Amino acid sequence: LSGPGNAWRRHAEKQWFLTEEEIMKHFRITPIGVIRTPFKGKEECPFQGAAGKVQGEIILEEHLQPALKDLDKVTHLFLLTFMDRADRKKLQTVTPHGPEIHGTFATRSPHRPNPIGLSVVKLIKINGCRLYVQGVDCLDGTLVIDIKPYSADIDSFPHAVSGWYEKAKRRKKKIPADAY
Amino acid sequence: LSGPGNAWRRHAEKQWFLTEEEIMKHFRITPIGVIRTPFKGKEECPFQGAAGKVQGEIILEEHLQPALKDLDKVTHLFLLTFMDRADRKKLQTVTPHGPEIHGTFATRSPHRPNPIGLSVVKLIKINGCRLYVQGVDCLDGTLVIDIKPYSADIDSFPHAVSGWYEKAKRRKKKIPADAY
Repeated sequence: LSGPGNAWRRHAEKQWFLTEEEIMKHFRITPIGVIRTPFKGKEECPFQGAAGKVQGEIILEEHLQPALKDLDKVTHLFLLTFMDRADRKKLQTVTPHGPEIHGTFATRSPHRPNPIGLSVVKLIKINGCRLYVQGVDCLDGTLVIDIKPYSADIDSFPHAVSGWYEKAKRRKKKIPADAY
Repeated sequence: LSGPGNAWRRHAEKQWFLTEEEIMKHFRITPIGVIRTPFKGKEECPFQGAAGKVQGEIILEEHLQPALKDLDKVTHLFLLTFMDRADRKKLQTVTPHGPEIHGTFATRSPHRPNPIGLSVVKLIKINGCRLYVQGVDCLDGTLVIDIKPYSADIDSFPHAVSGWYEKAKRRKKKIPADAY
């Protein structure tokens, strides 16, 4: 194995330790743009399954325009965001769906070691470095870090079951936004 | 808007510039584990849609075990990886599916500004901090950065169409691994 991650892999195998400087050098995210949405606070953001028809505008850095070639023929996108306002130390959390505490990897909460947000949005139009999309659930001004084409072949699992959420989603909203 | 991303947002609005140090401090990824797979080189990795039955083992850092609470009832996971061997400067690339050049955001190539890999895997079993999964497509030793529950409600779009890929996927493999 080669590449900077090699040091981390050796670290994981207790063969070597990474310095703070090495981690900062190699494991770094570069925001590629922002998304503008109507949601100014997390209490306004729709929960899982409710994003529906809300539209947003992804504004990418101008120099990235070549990376959009052929994206216009894609109907759905994965939108990866970086939720810099999340608590990265939290390993368990409540969700908007109920008062139960879940492991953060069993939820879509922003509070997780790497606060990467993931959602599927419908692509409406591309204009230069601006992408108009539908079905957004992020806070206005959320940093965008990647865009990928969604492929029904490999990404659609209509029979997937998501544990606790299947029950919890039938509840009305019960949890105030300052709790999650 | 508050939080460290605020500086970047002001930067995006040409109101302020981030120093290298600020970027390194705030936009940092922490590997949470590695995935072991049978694939030792990228020519061995299955392409989109072909991951099928291949099993892998995700080995997470021990201290993250509380974050797995309630994940055992989830059938499918999003696996987010960090492909540290990718070329982050590439904005266009060929793919294993054909000789045409695409924008990297229109592909699932590892070569992109933030080399985050995304795939859906089936969860077979959790044993402590080890997750046994099916349908893997990553190189052995790929760094894992996040795990999320897949929800059919919000993540399954069986009618999504992915542009150039719909045609290209019908071809036999034509591109040697050193080209992509």
